[in-house]
Amino acid sequence: HSEFIANIVNVMLQLKKLGKEDPRRAIHSFKVAFAITLVSSFYYFNSLYHSFGSSAMWAVMTVIVVSEFSVGATLGKGLNRGLATFLAGVLGLGSYYMVHSISRGDHIIEPILLGIIIFLATAGVTYIRFLPQMKARYDYGLLVFILTFCLVSVSSFRDKEILKTAQDRVTTILIGGLISVMVCIFVCPVWAGGDLHNLVSKNIQKLGNFLEGFGDEYFGTLEDGESNKLSMQEYKSVLNSKQVEDNLINFARWEPCHGRFRFQYPWQQYQKIGNLSRQCAYRIDTLNGFLNNFSKTPKEMRSKIQEPCMKMSIETGKALKQLSVSLHKMIPPSAANTHIAASKIAATNLRSMIKTNLLEDYTNLFEVVPIVTVASLLLDVVSSTEKLAESIQE
Amino acid sequence: HSEFIANIVNVMLQLKKLGKEDPRRAIHSFKVAFAITLVSSFYYFNSLYHSFGSSAMWAVMTVIVVSEFSVGATLGKGLNRGLATFLAGVLGLGSYYMVHSISRGDHIIEPILLGIIIFLATAGVTYIRFLPQMKARYDYGLLVFILTFCLVSVSSFRDKEILKTAQDRVTTILIGGLISVMVCIFVCPVWAGGDLHNLVSKNIQKLGNFLEGFGDEYFGTLEDGESNKLSMQEYKSVLNSKQVEDNLINFARWEPCHGRFRFQYPWQQYQKIGNLSRQCAYRIDTLNGFLNNFSKTPKEMRSKIQEPCMKMSIETGKALKQLSVSLHKMIPPSAANTHIAASKIAATNLRSMIKTNLLEDYTNLFEVVPIVTVASLLLDVVSSTEKLAESIQE
Repeated sequence: HSEFIANIVNVMLQLKKLGKEDPRRAIHSFKVAFAITLVSSFYYFNSLYHSFGSSAMWAVMTVIVVSEFSVGATLGKGLNRGLATFLAGVLGLGSYYMVHSISRGDHIIEPILLGIIIFLATAGVTYIRFLPQMKARYDYGLLVFILTFCLVSVSSFRDKEILKTAQDRVTTILIGGLISVMVCIFVCPVWAGGDLHNLVSKNIQKLGNFLEGFGDEYFGTLEDGESNKLSMQEYKSVLNSKQVEDNLINFARWEPCHGRFRFQYPWQQYQKIGNLSRQCAYRIDTLNGFLNNFSKTPKEMRSKIQEPCMKMSIETGKALKQLSVSLHKMIPPSAANTHIAASKIAATNLRSMIKTNLLEDYTNLFEVVPIVTVASLLLDVVSSTEKLAESIQE
Repeated sequence: HSEFIANIVNVMLQLKKLGKEDPRRAIHSFKVAFAITLVSSFYYFNSLYHSFGSSAMWAVMTVIVVSEFSVGATLGKGLNRGLATFLAGVLGLGSYYMVHSISRGDHIIEPILLGIIIFLATAGVTYIRFLPQMKARYDYGLLVFILTFCLVSVSSFRDKEILKTAQDRVTTILIGGLISVMVCIFVCPVWAGGDLHNLVSKNIQKLGNFLEGFGDEYFGTLEDGESNKLSMQEYKSVLNSKQVEDNLINFARWEPCHGRFRFQYPWQQYQKIGNLSRQCAYRIDTLNGFLNNFSKTPKEMRSKIQEPCMKMSIETGKALKQLSVSLHKMIPPSAANTHIAASKIAATNLRSMIKTNLLEDYTNLFEVVPIVTVASLLLDVVSSTEKLAESIQE
């Protein structure tokens, strides 16, 4: 019994946390509720009910299904639904009239022919849904196409006023779609493009955080109690960010121009930047693995290469954070260049140190070298990210 | 004009390729078409039409929306839809009767009260959809809940025979859901659990392929024309496999016992194995970065450490492939242990070689060491994967 209460309290706390993390979630819930109440209140007025009959139900349905979190997703679903309904309606009616004229009203041939057409159409469209480019942008439209095509050709067999029904349904779906798109755009809109922009620059910032803290953690130069381990582990969310980014890119492509994002904004560039920052994150995950068994390194060895190593990772971290800022503000990444140059100098220092005086008392190669190699690798990644960030500011 | 034809030919080729890659896709399309034709042919028979009226349409709709590729996804959607429809129907009717008795049939108060209830219910449920554990398994159910709740309470205001309508609708949705689940399970079923099992073991195999080929590529010991670069690059798909795996795990948990997978099979274990193999893949991606600029390494340096390095990566690769095989066949991974032992011996050899006679003519540390370090890191990952593979065979 008390366990049950504990569970409920737990869920409540989680719900509260969700709202705190992103207040737009609560706003979204009220937006959806508002749109639905708006549409269903139409139903209560005699005028709309009398002109559309039970088709008004389709408006309610459309609003519920189309309302998504971001403008891009809602627009994408709305356009998919509208176009697919229209196309499928026309084709469904067309195929019904064709069958009707061929079978001349025969009550055995007609359903058989209709069944064959439905079978072929659904099999074909279901198969097309597997195409990756279709799945990304038009999956929902293809589903609605199958749905409407079947409903129209099936009910045209029974319904005497089929044209009127089809017309009503298309109108109500348009009304529903318009209401949800309007509410989504004009009441506290959530732009997938803006989210994508923030996510990508935030991810680069997380990588920078790790590198800035890495030197202190690795060489143990922090005082007791201090630790930035928590903020350093944030980079892990970058590793699996591909799916979220791809979804946001797909949504962003549906959105009209808004704010700083003009029409035909090069959303695909974010994919490249995202891939590069993930590549960087993989390197950082490798580095992180060395962090956990750093105690094996002999102290005198560590202290020797400490200075250039720390400088390298801090400067690379700063460069990444600068890149993130300039990507976020859409300015050329000139401030990052000085940091990149500084970390390159540190890398050269380290390299010459290793060549000259370090090798004499080298005892445990395995434990010292990793940071050096991976940090030099990171330099490459940073400079390529920089190139991309520049290419975006064009 | 000719471009248009080229496009069509291109799409056709892609469609053919999709079917070749996985013939179950074509079968799935025919299954869905079969289920839909089955359900809509019911519509053509007078008996069903007369007893259910236009509600029969809901059966067609349910089949179309519920039919998914794998059994788990279909069952999950079907159960979600069935339960949510039932619950929302009962609650919707209940709230309608409550409002009706409070307002005593007043035509102004009644719609206002109904509107408030709809607003609160949809806002609440939409917000709950953001909970991660709800989103993973019950997202569709919550959507259907909102949909049905609104439709029932909205139409109860107009419909005189509301109880009959609700009953019809639940029955037709049950019929539709049952038909699609039956077709999905009994006609060439696609089990998400089996797919997950294959995916995870295939991913480990891809990692093994990379490591087996890595030595030859890095040291350039292959004859001209020969190259396994293509099969080595397969590991890249492992990097972003998390989303697919998580989805399959969610679907697999809906599935009844089948084949070698008994009831309450520990699907969550696959998440752990998947995470470990991705960790391993990040290391391999780092290694792959070194592969591309390997030409900088001086030849005499390379030839010295070639033997132990190649042995290490080949044996680790073999160990991973053995792990993949034993995971696939569900046998204890004893064969992998010998390979792991062999690669550990090679690592010790390499370590002592570096300590003793290599350092004298060390000139370019940066280009040689990476493989050594990462290969030793891989050993750790392999042994932990091994532990997990063992824990699954329990």
